[in-house]
Amino acid sequence: MKRINIGIVGAGTVGLGLIKILQENGKTINQKSGIEYHLEIVCNRNIEKIRHLQHTKITDKFEDVINSANVDVVVELIGGTDTAFTIIEQALKNKKTVVTANKALLSERGDEIFKIASDNGVEIGFEAAVGGAIPVIRTIKTALVSENFVSAYGILNGTTNFILSKMESMGRDYKEVLKEAQELGFAESDPTFDVEGIDAAHKISILASLAFNKKVEFDKMHVEGITKISKSDILFSASIGYRIKLIGFCKNINGKIEARVQPTMIPLNHPLANVMNEMNAIYFQTTYSGPVVLVGKGAGSFPTASAVMSDIVFYSTRVLGGENVPHETNLFPQADYFNQEDDMVRYYLRFNTIDKPGVLAEIARILGKYNVSISYVRQNESDSNAAEVSVLTHKSREGDIRNSVREIDQLQSIVLEPTVLIRLEDKL
Amino acid sequence: MKRINIGIVGAGTVGLGLIKILQENGKTINQKSGIEYHLEIVCNRNIEKIRHLQHTKITDKFEDVINSANVDVVVELIGGTDTAFTIIEQALKNKKTVVTANKALLSERGDEIFKIASDNGVEIGFEAAVGGAIPVIRTIKTALVSENFVSAYGILNGTTNFILSKMESMGRDYKEVLKEAQELGFAESDPTFDVEGIDAAHKISILASLAFNKKVEFDKMHVEGITKISKSDILFSASIGYRIKLIGFCKNINGKIEARVQPTMIPLNHPLANVMNEMNAIYFQTTYSGPVVLVGKGAGSFPTASAVMSDIVFYSTRVLGGENVPHETNLFPQADYFNQEDDMVRYYLRFNTIDKPGVLAEIARILGKYNVSISYVRQNESDSNAAEVSVLTHKSREGDIRNSVREIDQLQSIVLEPTVLIRLEDKL
Repeated sequence: MKRINIGIVGAGTVGLGLIKILQENGKTINQKSGIEYHLEIVCNRNIEKIRHLQHTKITDKFEDVINSANVDVVVELIGGTDTAFTIIEQALKNKKTVVTANKALLSERGDEIFKIASDNGVEIGFEAAVGGAIPVIRTIKTALVSENFVSAYGILNGTTNFILSKMESMGRDYKEVLKEAQELGFAESDPTFDVEGIDAAHKISILASLAFNKKVEFDKMHVEGITKISKSDILFSASIGYRIKLIGFCKNINGKIEARVQPTMIPLNHPLANVMNEMNAIYFQTTYSGPVVLVGKGAGSFPTASAVMSDIVFYSTRVLGGENVPHETNLFPQADYFNQEDDMVRYYLRFNTIDKPGVLAEIARILGKYNVSISYVRQNESDSNAAEVSVLTHKSREGDIRNSVREIDQLQSIVLEPTVLIRLEDKL
Repeated sequence: MKRINIGIVGAGTVGLGLIKILQENGKTINQKSGIEYHLEIVCNRNIEKIRHLQHTKITDKFEDVINSANVDVVVELIGGTDTAFTIIEQALKNKKTVVTANKALLSERGDEIFKIASDNGVEIGFEAAVGGAIPVIRTIKTALVSENFVSAYGILNGTTNFILSKMESMGRDYKEVLKEAQELGFAESDPTFDVEGIDAAHKISILASLAFNKKVEFDKMHVEGITKISKSDILFSASIGYRIKLIGFCKNINGKIEARVQPTMIPLNHPLANVMNEMNAIYFQTTYSGPVVLVGKGAGSFPTASAVMSDIVFYSTRVLGGENVPHETNLFPQADYFNQEDDMVRYYLRFNTIDKPGVLAEIARILGKYNVSISYVRQNESDSNAAEVSVLTHKSREGDIRNSVREIDQLQSIVLEPTVLIRLEDKL
């Protein structure tokens, strides 16, 4: 049996999960894959955490892993975008196969990394970077290799999905639920990356590039998080048969790419609507296969480690084929972007106004001025001096909707807080 | 760019779909895979159907495909278990990689085929045989390679899912909907394979073997179809928050395997409950990744052809690696089977009785005698002399439930038609 030696940098949650999987299931994995996997060396800043390892070298210097002549596959699990880049760059230059779960790095500097991999004739696996245990990347690259992707809609951040689910099930407000999520370990102490949609956007930029064979850049994306969503938005959504999810999506519109992350009301009977709590999901629309939906755990020690291990097996099989097996390339030409202002969409608008006659008329007047047609209005009664006006638009130009809201938000005699906009998708 | 020559046997729905995909997207597939795919030869009994092909040889003799020195990958798409076996056997002996969508053949004679492949050092791809466009096989073999599978529950037959969905949405009876499904091409003129659960069972036997690394045989499975399901069963199910699906499942119970296909009431909020019409789905429970759900089209020309093409790419990549790339093996030791009589399950029982006092007491007496405890009873009023008694049991031993029903069905003075049994799963 051929042998592949693994070197891990970073024995945090995922690293320790991977070590455990190799210890518990190594023999089965060897048997299934026809390859003998050996954990050659593990690096961790705090070496005490890996002192228990037997038959495996331990170190606190990542150079020991990436420069080891014995190591075939380097697994980068330290996260962040600085040292992680150095590790991956050097490992690739040393002709090691690399496996990583680092979506921020791939989204921001993927181009450089993929170029180095390509120049050095080696491959990099990153299944764990998008959707954790869900085989998103492998499905795009292998199962749907024949496809023209029309669109992909995903719930790709477990923290925000957990928060939105709990806001609904417990009837509580964002801040309360965030605090609880932090206590349960479902949200970081600084949750910005998750709750502002950045993490989901990193993932969408990676998968959009693979799906469309075009480099889709993170900073060309429209990205919004969930911090402005209130209990009343969730109730409103439920009352019209929809559920609010933080949806990341990418679409091919006549060769131009649209990629976004934003809170979106989707119909309750849509497959993504019932993906609750920390679960992630992706919904592809393809020309040959039609819709394909994948659901699973997007994060966590073992789900992520399992995805890392699947990359190790997948790419080490290819390594054994040497020069004969064509390498994957992740280098694509720049995408042309669709002008998002021109998107025809429906929005839910929550205006936070003072409670006096004429407010609704004024709002309606400005919406009308921008050709934003109203499908539904509800005005909440309130004990205080404040009122909430909820408006559902018909399909209108995105730019017109945004401009109308901007003008309304300037009416300081009426508007108390900036208006909340939530996209509504009838058909996705 | 390395070149792989494809030979197709069978230009029916799927074969023509595959030819179209190669014509339309061949260049993109070449670019993505780094391999140049050439359609070398196509065989069809009616050669007129493939007369339009250019740059490709055509024939009506399958021997021309499997014996061609130029062909690297033989795609068997004629179905059935006789000639198809010969084609696959000969192709493997000629050291060709084989790709097939033939679930009946794999389920019934897979062992022989996998042995021939192994003896000849070649591989066989069959992604399209289970779940069509859904990457069921690839996910088990690669994405979840590290996993211990606890169970897999699937909706793996589009015809029956279509029929059950329409029975619910249109409030109509089985026979009416079957007729419509036949007219729409969603059911065969002889629908036995589908409606009796045989097709789903073939698929479960294949995927169970791969998931558990044990050969799970079709004829060791308990298999029931949907022909006895009535409108009233569907209404009853909805009234208690469940939906009836034809569920195929396999479970690992302390090393023993249980594998079945039967109509099952599942909770409406379960991911499988909302898989409607002709869509298929699979729900894996794994120890590391937790639940993983895949949903998509289980049949049809392009979805199936897309899966076939993904196999061609996957296995031809490995072929290029030659001896160095370890081959997949699908040969497993015999499974130990769980004694299905001992399964602790809940059932819905619909007794079809004459309408007279004392009937319910007699049914309850016999259920009690077999230790089947009743959770819920409903007796339908009826204009005629007949009554329906619907009973929901608590968790009871499967064997006891079946024995009690057998005894009740012998009461010719009370029972008009055999009792209908539908499994109910609270947690799956």
